Amino acid sequence: MAEPSLHTYLFFCNAITLLLVVSPCLGLGLDTVREFLTREEDTIVFSLIERAKHPLNLPAYQDHACFGFGPSGRRRNDSFVELFVRESEEIQAKAGRYQSQEEIPFFHSRVPFTLAPPYNFTTDLYPAAASVNVNDAIWGFYFNQLLPLLAKNGDDGDYAVTAASDLACLQALSRRINYGRYVAEVRFRGDQQRYTSLISSKDKDALMELLTSEAQEDVVKRRVEKKAMVFGQDITLDGPTETGDKNTSQSSFKVVPSVVYKLYDQWVIPLTKKVEIEYLLHRLD
Amino acid sequence: MAEPSLHTYLFFCNAITLLLVVSPCLGLGLDTVREFLTREEDTIVFSLIERAKHPLNLPAYQDHACFGFGPSGRRRNDSFVELFVRESEEIQAKAGRYQSQEEIPFFHSRVPFTLAPPYNFTTDLYPAAASVNVNDAIWGFYFNQLLPLLAKNGDDGDYAVTAASDLACLQALSRRINYGRYVAEVRFRGDQQRYTSLISSKDKDALMELLTSEAQEDVVKRRVEKKAMVFGQDITLDGPTETGDKNTSQSSFKVVPSVVYKLYDQWVIPLTKKVEIEYLLHRLD
Repeated sequence: MAEPSLHTYLFFCNAITLLLVVSPCLGLGLDTVREFLTREEDTIVFSLIERAKHPLNLPAYQDHACFGFGPSGRRRNDSFVELFVRESEEIQAKAGRYQSQEEIPFFHSRVPFTLAPPYNFTTDLYPAAASVNVNDAIWGFYFNQLLPLLAKNGDDGDYAVTAASDLACLQALSRRINYGRYVAEVRFRGDQQRYTSLISSKDKDALMELLTSEAQEDVVKRRVEKKAMVFGQDITLDGPTETGDKNTSQSSFKVVPSVVYKLYDQWVIPLTKKVEIEYLLHRLD
Repeated sequence: MAEPSLHTYLFFCNAITLLLVVSPCLGLGLDTVREFLTREEDTIVFSLIERAKHPLNLPAYQDHACFGFGPSGRRRNDSFVELFVRESEEIQAKAGRYQSQEEIPFFHSRVPFTLAPPYNFTTDLYPAAASVNVNDAIWGFYFNQLLPLLAKNGDDGDYAVTAASDLACLQALSRRINYGRYVAEVRFRGDQQRYTSLISSKDKDALMELLTSEAQEDVVKRRVEKKAMVFGQDITLDGPTETGDKNTSQSSFKVVPSVVYKLYDQWVIPLTKKVEIEYLLHRLD
């Protein structure tokens, strides 16, 4: 067979370019989504282990214990950690973090992306549903319910380091849970007729049933618990390495593995499904 | 025996308070130092694994590819990542991060700690030597030598997330390496006479010999390599868990374990010893 001519070569190059431009969904499939979610589990477990390194540091979380001033120069009543997250997110907004739809800030600001080198982001999400998120719920359960299970009582004064650690946990949880938008988009594309009918009739119960696989959720919960064991053990050169069976005492790990199981069982999985349903309800807008 | 009276009780309380105030070295000993350094290994390995999740993202590192403006409003020639680190450190300075002597910024600013709740930090370091650090060397080897070994070629445009990941690596490495100041302080206190004589004669070679334990360094290097294997594996519910022996292919981990060995061998350990010696040379100032 003859070598392809330059014309043939260029034709294929153009065809591929065209395909990339007109098909924003290229690359988004069930496998990519699953791979992303599995990899994010590691990020979440790492961030929890890092937060657990520090004591609770209560003054960082108390309302009215604030030492910052609002833009008007008046004293604000936010906690230290809230001010820290707001100001850090502002820098990250300026640096273009929220140009990618995978990232959603906890506090919105209108800072232009002045620092960021230009990049043409494509989108896989349906525009009218893309901004669906449950960051308020994540903020609430993280500080009120999860943090007291992670951090030991105590105060070492390292509030900035602690708050930076909280921000890393919040960002990882937000990225993972709000990724439900991508899960929903993939499922919608895979069975448009069925989803269109349920969305049109706003049948939340049937949607929830369609989105739920208890067997798969059980695998995820047991896997994150195992990750907490493997990543949260003390590694010595000669000692045995923890393989994630349940015989070792939970207290010998840096984060109690059952807390990570609970995190997924009570918050991550239910909130992801909430995001999926909200996204789908706007999928035909 | 009679119950201790209130007076006796108050006497002991006062004595303990006095001890805490006049003895800033309380709590700093070889065991604390070793425990800190071992725990920081986990933080470093986690941060490297997280950075390796993203492609190289070259535009973030190119000089003159900058889209920010200096305080004077004039265009600056720093790279994006340098601007990002500067601005992030400024927020963290405002939040009081550098009130603790364990933390040293890469770029100094004179931002007051306006956000931070008050805390009385004690210090374990000798004031004239406390600011010794090798952050410039850390910045250099991280971007020029380590990063190309961590990140795969590619560009996904997520420069802000990537730069935040770099900052986490830099901060972990800086805290670990510059902790050499604490190591040196503990060693000095443990053998004041010998160290005083070597410091007075500025005998760097003898100091280096005194600070070096090849057997101990070998343990550390092999342990961090094992940590890269255990923390950087893909965890499945039923599959075997990697225990850190060398039979598995290096490429099946999220960060190549021998790169982490090399990081400690070529940079972390030698630079820590450099910090120790510099600190000691100022210990009698």
